[in-house]
Amino acid sequence: MARIAYPIIILNFKNYDQTVGKKGLYLSKIAEEVAKELSVSIAVCPQTVDLRKIAEEVDIPVLAQHVDANDSGSFTGNNLLQAIIETGAVGSLVNHSEHRLKLSDIERIVNKANSLDFFTCVCSNNLQTSKAIAALNPVACAMEPPELIGSGVSVTTQPDLVKDTIKAITDINHNVQPLVGAGVSTNQDVLEAIQLGAKGVLLASGFVKAKDPKEVLLRMAEAIL
Amino acid sequence: MARIAYPIIILNFKNYDQTVGKKGLYLSKIAEEVAKELSVSIAVCPQTVDLRKIAEEVDIPVLAQHVDANDSGSFTGNNLLQAIIETGAVGSLVNHSEHRLKLSDIERIVNKANSLDFFTCVCSNNLQTSKAIAALNPVACAMEPPELIGSGVSVTTQPDLVKDTIKAITDINHNVQPLVGAGVSTNQDVLEAIQLGAKGVLLASGFVKAKDPKEVLLRMAEAIL
Amino acid sequence: MARIAYPIIILNFKNYDQTVGKKGLYLSKIAEEVAKELSVSIAVCPQTVDLRKIAEEVDIPVLAQHVDANDSGSFTGNNLLQAIIETGAVGSLVNHSEHRLKLSDIERIVNKANSLDFFTCVCSNNLQTSKAIAALNPVACAMEPPELIGSGVSVTTQPDLVKDTIKAITDINHNVQPLVGAGVSTNQDVLEAIQLGAKGVLLASGFVKAKDPKEVLLRMAEAIL
Amino acid sequence: MARIAYPIIILNFKNYDQTVGKKGLYLSKIAEEVAKELSVSIAVCPQTVDLRKIAEEVDIPVLAQHVDANDSGSFTGNNLLQAIIETGAVGSLVNHSEHRLKLSDIERIVNKANSLDFFTCVCSNNLQTSKAIAALNPVACAMEPPELIGSGVSVTTQPDLVKDTIKAITDINHNVQPLVGAGVSTNQDVLEAIQLGAKGVLLASGFVKAKDPKEVLLRMAEAIL
Repeated sequence: MARIAYPIIILNFKNYDQTVGKKGLYLSKIAEEVAKELSVSIAVCPQTVDLRKIAEEVDIPVLAQHVDANDSGSFTGNNLLQAIIETGAVGSLVNHSEHRLKLSDIERIVNKANSLDFFTCVCSNNLQTSKAIAALNPVACAMEPPELIGSGVSVTTQPDLVKDTIKAITDINHNVQPLVGAGVSTNQDVLEAIQLGAKGVLLASGFVKAKDPKEVLLRMAEAIL
Repeated sequence: MARIAYPIIILNFKNYDQTVGKKGLYLSKIAEEVAKELSVSIAVCPQTVDLRKIAEEVDIPVLAQHVDANDSGSFTGNNLLQAIIETGAVGSLVNHSEHRLKLSDIERIVNKANSLDFFTCVCSNNLQTSKAIAALNPVACAMEPPELIGSGVSVTTQPDLVKDTIKAITDINHNVQPLVGAGVSTNQDVLEAIQLGAKGVLLASGFVKAKDPKEVLLRMAEAIL
Repeated sequence: MARIAYPIIILNFKNYDQTVGKKGLYLSKIAEEVAKELSVSIAVCPQTVDLRKIAEEVDIPVLAQHVDANDSGSFTGNNLLQAIIETGAVGSLVNHSEHRLKLSDIERIVNKANSLDFFTCVCSNNLQTSKAIAALNPVACAMEPPELIGSGVSVTTQPDLVKDTIKAITDINHNVQPLVGAGVSTNQDVLEAIQLGAKGVLLASGFVKAKDPKEVLLRMAEAIL
Repeated sequence: MARIAYPIIILNFKNYDQTVGKKGLYLSKIAEEVAKELSVSIAVCPQTVDLRKIAEEVDIPVLAQHVDANDSGSFTGNNLLQAIIETGAVGSLVNHSEHRLKLSDIERIVNKANSLDFFTCVCSNNLQTSKAIAALNPVACAMEPPELIGSGVSVTTQPDLVKDTIKAITDINHNVQPLVGAGVSTNQDVLEAIQLGAKGVLLASGFVKAKDPKEVLLRMAEAIL
């Protein structure tokens, strides 16, 4: 499967009706086409039950939306790193705004993921939590102001916040890739994010719910060429 | 896929190393063989990421270990009913001892599941919570004293608790199938559970970690013939 | 301190600015005055840190807003039954809409409270969860549709829901006092609740944020005379 | 009330039977006596319902064991900063091992506390989470390996961990006071912690459950003179 590279566009499928089963595979195929046509790095985050199917059928990085911190054992209903890796997924979102975690669990997940060469994109909500996350040494940290998620108003409308957060992340730990998200829905939003120093963007409805997802993604991909 | 019938043996794969990926499929195949050889009702609860693969390959009921209460939408990392149904799974454990839920979420899950003809086995920890669960009208309620789970000491060593709980469930709502679990690891445990009035058993390590899982399951299946 | 009797008006102080410290004591004094002037049963639920002060200074039942399920020991930050009882408080709300609990924890709390003759008013959100709660045998169950809490639109605008829920609670366990809440803000709301069969009401902003809390409470108290 | 100064001994009363009500006041008086006799900085963390009573009666810093992140309003059962401050308490433990919080909530609490000049001692479980917490800028960070809490085996039996953590905290944010805890039960443990660079210790059972708490605390206080 294609390696994760930067800049990257990460597409979160959430639990939208538009991403269940075959529809999620269809959207993943679109992502793969765009990634190959333009040679850009695009990753998809399907619904958990679809991880294996999609990882088998597309040649771009497939990420989980969440991974639990426990080791293997008696944790009924958990989705553990070992099982996710076995599906072919190569990483996971962690601490998304819709699935906030305890600090100690974020640390456990990142630490275990790093030891297994498993990609983690830990989400933060502001500059301060971005710094804390950077200190935990995940592969990437995606700052998303919660009030803008799903709003259609891009995080890049707050350029100082984006710039300051990227600088803060890098100052704490220059190994962490600074990403941004929330409200990202146009190629202009993506372009601005990259120009402000982000190494990529995280988006969901802007792609999943677009009338023409391929067209939207193509233009976003052009913005990061 | 085979229908759920009673008495039933429900096999919870938890997150044991012995159930990841192909190993979970192998155990599911064993369960299918035993179910067919003896014409007994056996269901498996694979790890979430394996639901689709196993539901495609075996002809016995496949259940999730957990399902989240939300409707489709922005719930990153949730495992929703709609997505689970699409994999071919026909039901779910709910409120397992290792994944306790808020009362209001149990009610939402059961209510939604009932409307979609989706099987729910809601776990309880004693007589009182069994009554509360029966009032919510799930398909089945599996009473498991937490201190016995994984202990190898069967719930049936407390026959009065089992009998009283089954009576309490049935008195509140005779539509609910009373099951028991915790420490069930031999055919004798299964036999006693059925003799005490249970409509089935829920077990995990007694099958998954057995030296010869097929032999263990065959003998348990004989006990409910 | 005055005994809990029915019908009862339970006043939840939540964490409003209007109820911090001396302001909460002032509102409790008003509740005491009205309870004595009209010989009606009124209880107050102050903020946790104010329980002792208020229980010392008023002669009406003082209730906690929440109590944790654990026994005494190493549970930093919990508010345990033993410590709450020692303040002079005589009961607690449990599972309020703003503090939903796991089913197994509600059962633990109710069970322990019953053994200590400690009043519990467990909140529910609909008919089904009310039945489940009634099966757990708390002293009272207060059904509050979450969408109406704080709305100013009274639960009694859904008279069939109120009647059916009260009947369902009583059918499961006639020892449980059926209460209702959500949007209760006028004497008419209280009157209708009692006429529909409720043994009392639970309210917060309708009293706490009233321009003249004493006048509002006097008229509500008249409605249950 | 006495100011917080360093080195400091913070005494967590948890929910032990030995700290309920008057017994908690008695232990607080002992702490006050020792603090005054030896002119050392000692703070107590009583049970929540006892905060006001104890803050009124002793002249040493009184801290909450936990504080919730929300602003004032509809958060039934929460213990908010505003209400805790009004009791006379001057700070709080945050994210104790027995009450772990989401990263985003720790950040909200610390940020609000800083704006109100309210002391926060955020607990961590290892070097990595200590760094993350330091990045959030609390007043203090107390590293406690969970497996040693209540064990009687002091954190100082891992001197490299203590030293490395203190250095890591200071490197990220030299404004944060590095404390340690877990298993601290003798004056020797306290002495070693200070010698390793800690600005104080956090302990519970070592004081609360001691046969002669005053004698134990006197000797610990001598160790930090």
